[in-house]
Order: sequence, then structure tokens, then C-alpha cells
Amino acid sequence: MQFMSDNAARVHPKVWAAMQAADAPDSPYDGDALSRRLDSLFADLFGRPCTVLWTATGTSANCLALAPMVPPHGGVVCHREAHIEMDEAGAPGFYLHGAKLMLAEGEGAKLTPSAIAAVIDPIRNDVHQVQPHAISITQASEYGCAYRPAEVAAIGRFAHERGLRLHMDGARFANAVSFLGCTPDEACGSGAVHALSFGFVKNGGMGAEAIVFFEDGLADVVRYRRKRAGHLQSKGRFLAAQIVAMVEDGLWLDNARAANAAAQELGAACAGRLLHPVEANELFVRMTAAEREALRAQGFSFYDWGDDAARLVTSWSSDAAHVSALARAVAAL
Amino acid sequence: MQFMSDNAARVHPKVWAAMQAADAPDSPYDGDALSRRLDSLFADLFGRPCTVLWTATGTSANCLALAPMVPPHGGVVCHREAHIEMDEAGAPGFYLHGAKLMLAEGEGAKLTPSAIAAVIDPIRNDVHQVQPHAISITQASEYGCAYRPAEVAAIGRFAHERGLRLHMDGARFANAVSFLGCTPDEACGSGAVHALSFGFVKNGGMGAEAIVFFEDGLADVVRYRRKRAGHLQSKGRFLAAQIVAMVEDGLWLDNARAANAAAQELGAACAGRLLHPVEANELFVRMTAAEREALRAQGFSFYDWGDDAARLVTSWSSDAAHVSALARAVAAL
Amino acid sequence: MQFMSDNAARVHPKVWAAMQAADAPDSPYDGDALSRRLDSLFADLFGRPCTVLWTATGTSANCLALAPMVPPHGGVVCHREAHIEMDEAGAPGFYLHGAKLMLAEGEGAKLTPSAIAAVIDPIRNDVHQVQPHAISITQASEYGCAYRPAEVAAIGRFAHERGLRLHMDGARFANAVSFLGCTPDEACGSGAVHALSFGFVKNGGMGAEAIVFFEDGLADVVRYRRKRAGHLQSKGRFLAAQIVAMVEDGLWLDNARAANAAAQELGAACAGRLLHPVEANELFVRMTAAEREALRAQGFSFYDWGDDAARLVTSWSSDAAHVSALARAVAAL
Amino acid sequence: MQFMSDNAARVHPKVWAAMQAADAPDSPYDGDALSRRLDSLFADLFGRPCTVLWTATGTSANCLALAPMVPPHGGVVCHREAHIEMDEAGAPGFYLHGAKLMLAEGEGAKLTPSAIAAVIDPIRNDVHQVQPHAISITQASEYGCAYRPAEVAAIGRFAHERGLRLHMDGARFANAVSFLGCTPDEACGSGAVHALSFGFVKNGGMGAEAIVFFEDGLADVVRYRRKRAGHLQSKGRFLAAQIVAMVEDGLWLDNARAANAAAQELGAACAGRLLHPVEANELFVRMTAAEREALRAQGFSFYDWGDDAARLVTSWSSDAAHVSALARAVAAL
Repeated sequence: MQFMSDNAARVHPKVWAAMQAADAPDSPYDGDALSRRLDSLFADLFGRPCTVLWTATGTSANCLALAPMVPPHGGVVCHREAHIEMDEAGAPGFYLHGAKLMLAEGEGAKLTPSAIAAVIDPIRNDVHQVQPHAISITQASEYGCAYRPAEVAAIGRFAHERGLRLHMDGARFANAVSFLGCTPDEACGSGAVHALSFGFVKNGGMGAEAIVFFEDGLADVVRYRRKRAGHLQSKGRFLAAQIVAMVEDGLWLDNARAANAAAQELGAACAGRLLHPVEANELFVRMTAAEREALRAQGFSFYDWGDDAARLVTSWSSDAAHVSALARAVAAL
Repeated sequence: MQFMSDNAARVHPKVWAAMQAADAPDSPYDGDALSRRLDSLFADLFGRPCTVLWTATGTSANCLALAPMVPPHGGVVCHREAHIEMDEAGAPGFYLHGAKLMLAEGEGAKLTPSAIAAVIDPIRNDVHQVQPHAISITQASEYGCAYRPAEVAAIGRFAHERGLRLHMDGARFANAVSFLGCTPDEACGSGAVHALSFGFVKNGGMGAEAIVFFEDGLADVVRYRRKRAGHLQSKGRFLAAQIVAMVEDGLWLDNARAANAAAQELGAACAGRLLHPVEANELFVRMTAAEREALRAQGFSFYDWGDDAARLVTSWSSDAAHVSALARAVAAL
Repeated sequence: MQFMSDNAARVHPKVWAAMQAADAPDSPYDGDALSRRLDSLFADLFGRPCTVLWTATGTSANCLALAPMVPPHGGVVCHREAHIEMDEAGAPGFYLHGAKLMLAEGEGAKLTPSAIAAVIDPIRNDVHQVQPHAISITQASEYGCAYRPAEVAAIGRFAHERGLRLHMDGARFANAVSFLGCTPDEACGSGAVHALSFGFVKNGGMGAEAIVFFEDGLADVVRYRRKRAGHLQSKGRFLAAQIVAMVEDGLWLDNARAANAAAQELGAACAGRLLHPVEANELFVRMTAAEREALRAQGFSFYDWGDDAARLVTSWSSDAAHVSALARAVAAL
Repeated sequence: MQFMSDNAARVHPKVWAAMQAADAPDSPYDGDALSRRLDSLFADLFGRPCTVLWTATGTSANCLALAPMVPPHGGVVCHREAHIEMDEAGAPGFYLHGAKLMLAEGEGAKLTPSAIAAVIDPIRNDVHQVQPHAISITQASEYGCAYRPAEVAAIGRFAHERGLRLHMDGARFANAVSFLGCTPDEACGSGAVHALSFGFVKNGGMGAEAIVFFEDGLADVVRYRRKRAGHLQSKGRFLAAQIVAMVEDGLWLDNARAANAAAQELGAACAGRLLHPVEANELFVRMTAAEREALRAQGFSFYDWGDDAARLVTSWSSDAAHVSALARAVAAL
């Protein structure tokens, strides 16, 4: 009974079907019919024009999205526990050619204008200090917390005032939208975001994420950067197929709803133990080592979170019986 | 009737089957059972110990293979028409942090010790000039020519004498081995190569190549570099599954034989027009613009090669009837 | 009456004399007689073998020193207020090709083994997180505090246990040695340091710092990196001349003693206001805005340090009358 | 009797005097009065607005000039024997973060529009190939040949048509202007050049070159890049002093005239042996090994140029008697 991560979950049958349907010769790279549909597909989804590039991983999506926003001598403000800071092996340093991550604080791994200001206001406007060029936020955050539309919009206004661009790491964007009950555009602050890494791998896909550029010109640079990074797959139609399958009939939202519902069920059982509100598909649950051992002895697998807590992650394919069993087991601790 | 490229060909049914069989939860990244089989699988194939990492593309395979061999201030000798020089969008400059490609000449895009010496001998041994650290050769070459085992071994000895490491871009390694009728190890000069990019995408795979390290220690660096480049896919088992399916029952060689046989059939029809001997699955065929137009009018698609020639590429899935039709059409020109 | 910084102070007459004596044709770059003396000159000074390269600035000295210690995918632990983090415009990100600075805490901008451990112990030993490869400490620190020999030695032992190399930013190394009353080698923890940036520009030089490598092999890489960074000046004899003039008759220590003595005189007058003990030639002095204005009205120039303090810096050429005047003025506040 | 290089020649007395006059406390970095004079000084010299930054070396001048013109995924067209390709240790790869040098042919190491077109016309306009963003030419060239004003202007028009920027490596710009008898602006094609590396080190300076930006905005980026590269010296007034001394009374041109005159005297003696016309202060002279040995036996020092030639370089401080002696000795061979 697996609650380790959503990143190793199964591939959805509709995604498999779409990939197999794509197995006929077409133009290589992103010249195929499916890849060419992405711009309009996402423009419809977001209700605003955009340019969309696929890539295989969240790390490459985040770094390619930031690449045209931040010069090598610039910086990106992100949360101290952002994925780009903690878990991407220094990929931003690689893709941005040594640009700097500027670490801000914030409850639940969420940023606010004032938290960002606390980082950048002390930076002297001289050549001795790295100047910020962009902000990166994660929707839902690394602690499973969703930015409300107004919160993203406020960060967007702040970014605009300071001449910064705004990137959103949406590895679990679908879970955030599902929780918020808003439109995808609203979850991006209604136009506040310049580039969104829209994740599918954790949500039923196999190996395809979408980078959605809402600002003209950014994607044109990234086309070169993607190839230069070895991420322009020759059989790109199989990545596009995954994304189309996830988006066109709302599968992305259905899958996220299922994962979130499982998380809510667990969350109810964990009331009083939660380190963060349950808003997406991750739970951070206060739990002694003995309690964790007891759960593991019952067949549940999950990561420790520090010495006093566990991280539980649900996915679109979490087994309902397993979820209920874990909920009961936690309640019984 | 498509003879454009092998890089957009279909995925082999056995590869599909292996991928689907892998669709059960397992450890993420490369901790799954399939990824953990790769070292021994390739050690058996090559008859010598090796460490194997998967990656999605040939460009990333080449660059990650070179990364631990060449410091940022160093250089790599390759052919003037090598894929890493011509068609990877400067990826070596990115992955090697500005290291330099040093361009050598050679018939059929193949290097020889003397061609390499002609490039590196004039380099003064001082800090004003970039010093070579590695050699990269392509098996089969960009013109479809295979290095004979003794040729690779000679380059290996030369590399050893000069203190250089040897990389082999094996995007079409299978086609070369099939043509040569030798073992995979012999096609690498019997231990001459330090790292091989072993390609599967053009040969029936979907999006997985193997980087095979024959020298201890190189892979340990590349594990970090792969993650840092965003190429460590979380559902890596689907890449490993492709590779295992291609290697374990000899599918890689069966597919290459089919592609090569199709190329030979075309080659016979093109006798007298060939710019290079047909040794793998690519043909470079002298042909006027009118002749090319005539072929296209009959439904054949392929790339022009300069003003006076065409490039014809076969694959494991080339339709036998299409191949024969093209052979007849060329013969009838 | 200038107490802004030592980095714009005058050039010592003996340095001028040595530079002019060097104005005869000699081999370019570092092939001249003066450059070739540096290894033995510093070996005598430190009592252990070393290899010495000159460069024009402290930033390039620090970054070149670190370059052979830290791969692009690695990290360097330094203090949160280290010069390499705060005031070098991201130069480490440039020279180390995107490697990461890992920020540790510590009183007076000094690190301790436990402060370093607090940063690196939580780093998981997996490819998703950047691994530390080196530690950089500043002697004297950015707050003018000197590491005691035993403190450096303890950091050295810690570094050795963890497989890390140790760099010392010695922009004000002379001031530290003067304060400590120990040998230069002791100020480096008696062999604990692998590479030292030994500063002269703030201490009577014009534009020359020495990078002193105590570990074999590092300098050989840096010779290439220095040229590649455009820091191999063709008339290098003028940089070597400055360094030789500073070192051979103990001018470096004489100048530091003068600067430190001036700082001590001011320190006595600032008793009760000091944010940090005065151990080198910088004072951080609690002072209201009105007090600072009063001093400036009397003709003293210096930097504010935040809202409630001033930074006062003395140098080898601080005018004794100015120093006494400032001491009296502060005492009279 | 030294004819090795101008890069190790003496420092002109007026430069010394200016440096010593600058030895009073002033603002650090480039905030001093001399640094702040540079923009207007060069605007007067060129008759057009410009922004000027100093740096210590020609390599850093070239690379910093190119940095804002060429993205990491772009390319720079230069001559196959350009200094940036041959003798800067891969510095462009470092400063431009892996951008590519695209090598063109041309007599006397000079480029022409057609030679540039021969390199860039075959580049497919797709993401698989590195696209050119700038052209770099050397005035006078690496073989001592000066571009005529109309030649630079033609390259400038070509660059404009192709959307490329134009950089001029002017390590020996003074020698070219002296030879051409034109204005500095004409030697830049009357506004064709976007950034000029104006060299002083080889022409009487100690360690200061000027980067002259004729396009708005470029210098603003380079201010950050210069600091990030460790080239923002804290006592920058000593670099500015050198440049001001060289420019304000025409010393740069006087010195170049002297060097060129010496070269002409030698050139007359070498008639019939010259590989390239003598237009600046370098001579490439056909000469057997025995002849070279004979000259060396008479006390002349110089570099071999391949197996069959010698390179002779004069400077502003070449001894007239030595020059005449060498002229006689060559004539007597």
C-alpha cells in the first residue's frame, strides 16, 4: 500500500491509448500534428493566447521556462524549500548559466509580496550584487498548499512593479486547480504568470510536461534552449499525445480530483496531526517513530519527514481500499 | 513512402509490450528493477564490465558521456560533420561549459589517427590554447560508414598515447555492428572506447538511449549531471523497459539487419550514384533536381543533400514494397 | 578624512619603486623573473611548499582558487555574509559554472564546524541534491574578526573528515596575521588550507593578489582557467613586482600593523558601541543617524551599516591626525 | 635586440606619470574622476556618442564586448586565425556560456562579406543548428593587415542585413589607424561597429584596455558581467589614468606611428620575403631555419612562424639602432 510519491504512479489507460494511436510515421521532433495542436489546446484551456512546448521532466520544464527570463548574471526569487532549490541538483545553476536563487521565507512554502520584498529590498542597486530578474512560485506548493487566485495576482502585481517576471512551477497544478475550484487562468492569477510548468507526469502521464508561455517571445528562445539541452525528442509525438490526452477531455482535472479526494479522506483521519492544511494530494503528518513503524508493519509505505512526521502522497491511481485502510490505521494510532 | 529519417519511425511491438508490462508502481527514477538490470545486461552483451545510464535522446547521451571526460577549459576532437558539431544546437558547449569542439577531416565523416593528429599536433602546449581531452567518433558515421574494429582500435591506441579519452556516438551503433558482422565489443575496438552512446530511438525504441561507461568512475559523475540536466525521468522504468526489450533477445540487431537490408537493396539500385559506400541504413545518392522531383512525384519522400544529391534513410519498419518500388524507380531514372 | 574603505587607499612607495624597476623588457605573461620568484618567496613565508599565481582582483582570486575544487554540479559552504556570496556579483556562479553557494550562519561572519555541519548534514546523499565539495572562510572575516589558528585547524579537520577542500579568502589576511601575532602558516591552521587568496590591493598594492595553492595539482588547472578568464596579463611582471615588494621585506605586515593600530585607536574610542570586537582594520559601530551626521559634518566620511551603525575602515595610509580626530569626535558624541 | 612581441614592451613615461598623479584617494572601482571622463574623451575621439569601460586585458575586453551580443545558444563568426579562436584559451566559450565560434576564411586573416556568407548561408534556420548573432573582426588583423574603411563599412552593412552585431578586436587599432591615415571612426567603418576593444597594453600602456560601446544598452549589461568576471578593479583609477594619458594628447597615435615606422623600415629590407603586406607593426617573413639561426646568432630574438618563416614585431619603444641593425642583417642574408 504505497503512499511514497505520485511521481511513480501508473500511466492512465487513456494516455496509453493516445500514445499508441500516435504510433504512425509523422514529422520528427515537434513538427507532428499533435505537437502542433498544443498552442490552441492550451489557449482554449486558459482563455488567453499562449505558446506551448513539451519536455520530459519537471526539472527541465522549470529551468527552460526560467531560461529566457533570467540572464546569467541575474537572480530568481523562490522559496527556501522550492523544488528548484532543494531537489533539482542545481539544474537552475546549469540552465541559467550560474544565475542565483534568492531564498525567501513563507508559511507552507508559499511566497507573498512582503516575503519577496524582504529578500530583494536589501539588494543594493549596484554591480556588486546580483539583481533579481524573476520570481518562481509553486502551485500547489511543496507542502501541498494552493495559492488563492488573489494571492497569485498580488504577486503578479508586485512582480510587475519591480520589473520581474513570474514563473509558476505547476508540477501539481492540476491538484491546485481542483482544490481551488477555479479556472486554470485564475489559478495563475488571471494573467499574472509569464510561464507555467504544467505537470502531467505525477497525474497520469508517463514522461511529458507542458511549458506554457503567456508572454510573446519567450518560447522562441526556449526552442533553441530545449534542443541545446537535449530535450527535443525526435519522436515528440509521443509526448504531445500524452498531453493532448490529459487535456482534451478534462482527464487532468478528473485525475487530480481523485488524488485530492483520497488526500482529503486521509486528512480527515489525520486531524490534529497536520503540519499544513491538506489542499492538494500531499499530507505532512505529525507522527512518532513508533507510530510510523506501526503503520509500516501494517503494509503502508511512505517517506519520513524529518524526525517527527511522515509525508503521505496520494495519486490518481491510489487504491480506494488502501486509502481507507490507511485512514483507519492512522485514526487508530 | 517515407525515406526521410529513421528518427521518426514506429515503435516496435515488443518495445510497446515491455513498456506496458512496466506499468506497475516501482521505485522512481532509476531505482526500479529494470533500470537496475542494465549494468549486467550490457556487461553480458559487451563481455566486459560497464555501467549503464539511460537518457531520452541522443544529444543528451553524447553530451553526458563527454561531460566527465572534458573540463570546461578543454577540447574534444570530432569530425567536421559530426552530429555533435552540426546538429545538436551547441549542446556540447552547454553540457561541457564552453569546452571546444576541434574539427578534423576525414572521408565519409570518419576520423583516423593521422586526421586527429593534424588537428592536435599544431596546438601549442601552453595556456593560451585549448588543449584536447577527448576524441569523439560516430559508429556508423554521419555518412553511414562503419569503422572497422581495427580502425577503432587504432584510434584507441592513439588516444591512449596522447592521454585522451575516446567517446563513440552510437546513434546507429546497431547498424554498424550488423554490417560489420562482429561483436559489439569489437565494434568498439575491443575496449578502446571509454563511453558509448548506444542508440535505440532510431531502431525501434520510443525515447531511450543507453550511455555505456567502460571506465570506472565516469558514471558516478554523470548520475549528477543527468539529474542536473533534467534528464532523470521519475518514471525511468519506461526507458529501461525499452532498452531491456531491445537488448535481451537481440531485437536491436534484428531491427538493424532489417534496416540495413533495405538499404542494401536500394544501394544496388543506386550503383554508380553513391557518394559513400552503403554500410548502414543511410544512402547519399547523386541525383539531379529533376530526378528528385520525378521520384517525389511518384510518392517518395526524402531529404535533399545539397544541390546534387538525395539522402535516403531506411529503418527497421521500412515497408518492403516501398523499398522495392524506390529501388525500381531509381534504377529507371 | 576618509574612513570609507581600504580598497581605494594609496599605493605604497615601495610598491611604486618595484613596479618601476620592473619596467624593462622581460618575458610576457608570467614567464618573467619576478613571477618565477613567487613560489619560493611564499614557500619561505609559509614554511611549506606552494604554488603561487597572481591575479588583479580579490574576486578573481577567490573564484580561481575555488575552480579546481568544485565541479559545476557541486557546492561550496560559506558564511551567509561572505564576500563571495554578497559582493562578487555572482562571480562564483560564473567561474564554477553554476555550482552552488551553501550559506551557513556564524557570529562575526565566522564559520565553525558545527555551523557547517548544520548546513551539510541535512543534505541527502542522492543525485537530487547538490553535494558540498569545499568550504570557504574569510580571514579576517567580513566583520573584521580573525579566526584563531586552532579554529582554522578545527575547520580543516572537519573538512578532511567530510572529504571537502578548504579555501581561505584572505583579502585582509595580513590584518589577521598582524592581530593574531602568529605565523602566516598558523593563520591558515598549519596546513589546513588548500588554497589561499592572499590580498595586497587593500594593503598598499595597486592591482595584484596572490593565489597560494598548498595542494599539488590545483594550480595546474588554474593556469588554464586564469587565461580563460582573461586574467593572464601580458605585462604580468608589474603584478609580480607588487607582490614581491609587499612580501620580501615584510611590508605586508608593516602595513597591516599600521592599519590595525589605527583601528585599535578608534576601537578604544568606540568602546560600548562596537557590534564586533576590533581585530583587524574594520569597525562596526552603533551610532544613530544624528550621530553619523554630526561626524560627517566634521569632515569624516564612512559608510552607513544598516540603519543604526557605521562602518569605519582604516588602512596602511590612514592619516594619524585624522584617526585621532575621529577617535576624539566619536568619544565626544 | 627584441622583436618577439609588443605585448611585453615598456610602459610609456607619460603613462607612468599619469598613474602616479592618480595616486590619491578617490572613489573605488570606476567611480573616480578619471573613469568618469572616459565616455566624453572617446566621444570626442570618435565623433559619436559612446560608453567606455576599462578592463585589464585584451582577452577580457573582447569577451566582455561580445557578451551582450551573443546568447549562450548563439554563435560569432570570426576568422579561423582570429585571436579569440586561437589564443584566448577558450575564453569566448567561458564568457559566452558555450556559444560557438564560427570560423571563416580570408586572406591576411581578414574577413569579407562573402567569406562570412560562406559560413552562415549553409546554416539551416532551425533549432538543430547554432545561429549566428555577431561577427568579430580584428583591426589590424592577426597578420598585421588593416581593413580599409570601406571594407569595414561593407561588413557593417552585411551584418545589418543579416541582423548580426559587429565587434572589432582592436588590440592594434592604433597601428591600423596610423597606417590608414583616417579617423578612428573611419577605421570602424563610420559607425559600423557596435563594440570596439581598443588596445593600449601593446602600445605603451601597462594593463588597461578600453571597451568602447557605440550601441546603447550594451554597456549596461557589461557592467555586471565585468564585475562578475572579477575585472572590476577597486583601484580602477589607475586603469583609467593609463587610458586617459594615451588618448588625451594623441599619445596612442604617436606610439603607433613609431612602431609602424620601425615595421616599414624592416619591411623594406624584407621585400620579396613578405607573406603579408606590412601595414601595422608585425612582419611575417619567409626565412629558412638557417637564416633565422644566423639572425639569432647576431643577437636578434623573434618567434618562428611555422617552419619557413619568422614573425617580427616592433613596438613604440623599439630601439632605432636595433631596427636598423635588423634591417641590414635581413638584407644581407
